[in-house]
Amino acid sequence: MERTLVIVGGVAGGASCAARARRLDETATIVMLERGPHISFANCGLPYFVGGQIDRRDKLLVTTPDRMRQRFGIDVRVRHEVLSVDRASRTVEVRDHEAGRTYRQPYDVLVLSPGAQPVRPKLPGLDGQRVFTLRTVPDAERIRAFVEDRDPRAAVVVGGGAIGLEMAENLVGLGLDVALVEMADQVMPWLDREMAEWIHQHLTLKGVQLHLNSPVQRCDEAPDGRLTVRVGGGRRIDCDMVICAIGVKPEVDLARAAGLDIGARGGILVNPQLQTSDPSIYAIGDAIETLDHVAGGRRLMPLAGLANRQGRLAADHICGKDVHYAGAIGTGIVRVFDLVAASTGANEKTLKAQSVAYAKSYTHPASHAGYYPGAVPMVMKILFAPDTGRLLGAQIVGVDGVDKRIDVLATALYAGLSVSDLAAIELAYAPPFGTGKDAVNIAGYVGGNTLDGDVDVFHADQVDRQVGEGGFLLDVRTAGEFHRGHIDGAANIPIDDIRGRLDEIPRDRTVLVYCLTGIRSYYACRILTQAGFRALNLSGGYMVYCAAEPSRCKGIPGLRRWKRASAMETFCSTPEERQILANRSGRRPQEESERPAD
Amino acid sequence: MERTLVIVGGVAGGASCAARARRLDETATIVMLERGPHISFANCGLPYFVGGQIDRRDKLLVTTPDRMRQRFGIDVRVRHEVLSVDRASRTVEVRDHEAGRTYRQPYDVLVLSPGAQPVRPKLPGLDGQRVFTLRTVPDAERIRAFVEDRDPRAAVVVGGGAIGLEMAENLVGLGLDVALVEMADQVMPWLDREMAEWIHQHLTLKGVQLHLNSPVQRCDEAPDGRLTVRVGGGRRIDCDMVICAIGVKPEVDLARAAGLDIGARGGILVNPQLQTSDPSIYAIGDAIETLDHVAGGRRLMPLAGLANRQGRLAADHICGKDVHYAGAIGTGIVRVFDLVAASTGANEKTLKAQSVAYAKSYTHPASHAGYYPGAVPMVMKILFAPDTGRLLGAQIVGVDGVDKRIDVLATALYAGLSVSDLAAIELAYAPPFGTGKDAVNIAGYVGGNTLDGDVDVFHADQVDRQVGEGGFLLDVRTAGEFHRGHIDGAANIPIDDIRGRLDEIPRDRTVLVYCLTGIRSYYACRILTQAGFRALNLSGGYMVYCAAEPSRCKGIPGLRRWKRASAMETFCSTPEERQILANRSGRRPQEESERPAD
Repeated sequence: MERTLVIVGGVAGGASCAARARRLDETATIVMLERGPHISFANCGLPYFVGGQIDRRDKLLVTTPDRMRQRFGIDVRVRHEVLSVDRASRTVEVRDHEAGRTYRQPYDVLVLSPGAQPVRPKLPGLDGQRVFTLRTVPDAERIRAFVEDRDPRAAVVVGGGAIGLEMAENLVGLGLDVALVEMADQVMPWLDREMAEWIHQHLTLKGVQLHLNSPVQRCDEAPDGRLTVRVGGGRRIDCDMVICAIGVKPEVDLARAAGLDIGARGGILVNPQLQTSDPSIYAIGDAIETLDHVAGGRRLMPLAGLANRQGRLAADHICGKDVHYAGAIGTGIVRVFDLVAASTGANEKTLKAQSVAYAKSYTHPASHAGYYPGAVPMVMKILFAPDTGRLLGAQIVGVDGVDKRIDVLATALYAGLSVSDLAAIELAYAPPFGTGKDAVNIAGYVGGNTLDGDVDVFHADQVDRQVGEGGFLLDVRTAGEFHRGHIDGAANIPIDDIRGRLDEIPRDRTVLVYCLTGIRSYYACRILTQAGFRALNLSGGYMVYCAAEPSRCKGIPGLRRWKRASAMETFCSTPEERQILANRSGRRPQEESERPAD
Repeated sequence: MERTLVIVGGVAGGASCAARARRLDETATIVMLERGPHISFANCGLPYFVGGQIDRRDKLLVTTPDRMRQRFGIDVRVRHEVLSVDRASRTVEVRDHEAGRTYRQPYDVLVLSPGAQPVRPKLPGLDGQRVFTLRTVPDAERIRAFVEDRDPRAAVVVGGGAIGLEMAENLVGLGLDVALVEMADQVMPWLDREMAEWIHQHLTLKGVQLHLNSPVQRCDEAPDGRLTVRVGGGRRIDCDMVICAIGVKPEVDLARAAGLDIGARGGILVNPQLQTSDPSIYAIGDAIETLDHVAGGRRLMPLAGLANRQGRLAADHICGKDVHYAGAIGTGIVRVFDLVAASTGANEKTLKAQSVAYAKSYTHPASHAGYYPGAVPMVMKILFAPDTGRLLGAQIVGVDGVDKRIDVLATALYAGLSVSDLAAIELAYAPPFGTGKDAVNIAGYVGGNTLDGDVDVFHADQVDRQVGEGGFLLDVRTAGEFHRGHIDGAANIPIDDIRGRLDEIPRDRTVLVYCLTGIRSYYACRILTQAGFRALNLSGGYMVYCAAEPSRCKGIPGLRRWKRASAMETFCSTPEERQILANRSGRRPQEESERPAD
């Protein structure tokens, strides 16, 4: 007898599951029940639809119910909401919102792909008409209509995750004054704090009012519709509309009511075959907890790519294929104005929380050959096992080439490669695309240098402790660079003078060497170590220090100087980049060129 | 006692070796002897310097002799040519071209990094004043000066490798009429023929006169300086200048004269520690033969990235580190006007020549989410082991996102991943950067479908044989697409009609199904197979067929239609891309949208 497969939810995971199931099984009855008006829509495109970069709604519709019916013979029912699951009789109770009737739909196999819902905190005023969330096409249309009809001048975005940042960018693009309010001390939770600092400063340069450590307390609406958002610390922000983007939570009401196991993080629990605690019910996508392949444990990972993959794998298992879903690494990327920030695997916060031993390393490689037009630097942080060098995670912030490097690192992480492997990978080089030693190779060399014992490093967050233990802070940049800003208490001997001035450096103290990016100080460490000193290199140099300790520094070097320049130039913080700009503008570079080396 | 390390050649490999050796050993005497006037120059940037995209010579100089002296204490001697090596006395004989004297320089360890020389065939007229090669900064300056002073109107580029193609682009950019002459039946030897066809048609659209299968026979200079290049088949091409870019050969005269072992391909032989047959002499870079990590055997791989890496590894071994250089995969990329072509690992020609068993698969994924502006398709070919699915090589042609995908595939190849791994890698997705199923994931799914037996494929070069053996060719595109061009003898049943028209398909013949890109035909194969037919899917569809059999087709679909459009549009050959263009221009797409699926 033919089986009936019922899929609850028709977006990423559900649609992938349905199409795959049909390709594997021509005879099954496949019913896809979607509560909303659209299936398979491009959730991730919604902020750009609001901002007008995507101009028409139909572009967001990856496929249509008609196409799914015609091509795959799938019984697609939109605006049909599943109200409950009766596991004993293997039926679901469905509300047809179009016809206004309720019916029971039998299943042999049920797939739950209900997704997640935006969190809207129960605070006074956050349920108002001018407070929006963004998850569906109708949500986006409501925001777009409000902007067109009411001509708001100011918006508050609550939440500094990907959606919040993308909405901030798009609302600025529409001409609004935007304030971004975030409860934590950083935006983009999957970045570590000192990497997120780049985004903080970039947002400010772009005119976004950034309020960190600012939990929202209430939102008051004046009779004229004007809103006042109050945040912790007594601050009040006036605006005409609020976007509430503080995150999503798995849609588990149906699963919970059906008695299926729910995990500690609030997602549906599944086995490696993506079955729930009832083997005839599968669950996929944003609603489930996924095994963290790197740091261990289960996590909520609301990522479209994972939902697609899980949908396909569930269909494979339903159709008799051998499936073992070992979990996920978690790779994400976000564009914020001209900056791009990306992450793969574990971050430092997670590794600390899970008590996983790690080492870390920062580099500032160029997006492509410095001699070819348009090369720009990025900041790359890698985390790896301190014994084997096995990669545990990576984070990158930059304006160009970030997506490529994070994908290479995600592949390396998937494959279990180590930092010495990163040095050896052969990446494509022609002037517009890379360098003879690619950014990833350089990260591998620099990480490998510490593993091999060629150089010992210390980190920006250890400066105080190292100095407190008697370390001698040595800045090896030029005198000009030093005078424009340095770490308090540092001495200055430029790199090329070191060999002749060793007697100025105390032999009985650990020498804490730094330069702008960590390259010249690495050379200095090699000289000092071979001359009998104990020397440590500040990984990532003064640039990472300024990002890690923004209150002690006058901004990340270079960022202030270029803030009136074009978008891309706001990121130009390394001497290499300044060299390019100086060449372009006819000015002389003000700091020494520091080329990536290993 | 302090050792003396002498390095012959100061460009990529030599300079990397010198700097690394100094970092590991403060006490060694390091002498770098460079025949030319520059060290460490950006060879790969030369075509762009000729074309003016890189405007100043000093940008090509990655570092200077002064910097190497100051920072690394390296005794750099430019315009010093090593004439011979006396292994018995451990000395080299050096000609100082500046001072006009010859002297002997002792060494404890010698590193040969002499690079390669452009091949200039001994044919009548190819030694003329208006026939140029391009390998050094002075070479580039000569060409630039000739173009500026003589205002040539037409150039012939001999050789369709990376330098030849880049020169063709740059000379067109300078306003010259350019003919490209290539002895083989394709440009870019590391691509397979049907992938190179994209470049052939793109070159033609860009106004380059392309002559394949055209060995140069002679070059005659008229009294007015006008040149006539004669090629096989009696063709004559008039021009004002010739760029001879038929390849490079390793510089091995010094090594051969010193009695060191030279390999069958003309490169210096080295062991996994990069030592020559004399263990106190190392050799690195373009001059050596490198183990082919994928297909086996030794190959010449003149790639800057490999030279850098080998230079560093040689220094490591010289300084007492454990080194084992297992060979190279070979990853390359070239931009040709608006197209980008890249390759990693083995190509089909090599696998055939080495009798390595392989399967192959073609896909046409988008550069990023189709709903976000600027998405363009690419053609991706992967080669993998027919049993395990282990990746053996990949080739990509496209206008955007090619460099990223080839780097991901190069990393996968390095790590020994299989096509099922490609499906599982988690790549970064946000609308400007990728898709929920990235191009690499799709290649993995499609390759995996054949490995798993979900669909059997046939290839464009097997159409005749399959038809000859009684196969029934079935085109499942729309009637409109079919009428605009199809494979001779094919029947047409559009995909969505298949289920209802099974009785029109002969049950006793193998059904050879195709569509434009291979997606709809895959669905059709699944339907047919489950209905009891034996069906094969044409991998990559009609697009790959048109590239593989250009003489039977009216060009690659879409390419002709858009040829008067902007650069990027010349590549717009898939319905997805046409959809984007149609949206942009207000026209209706003329073919059905075919979205990437798995």
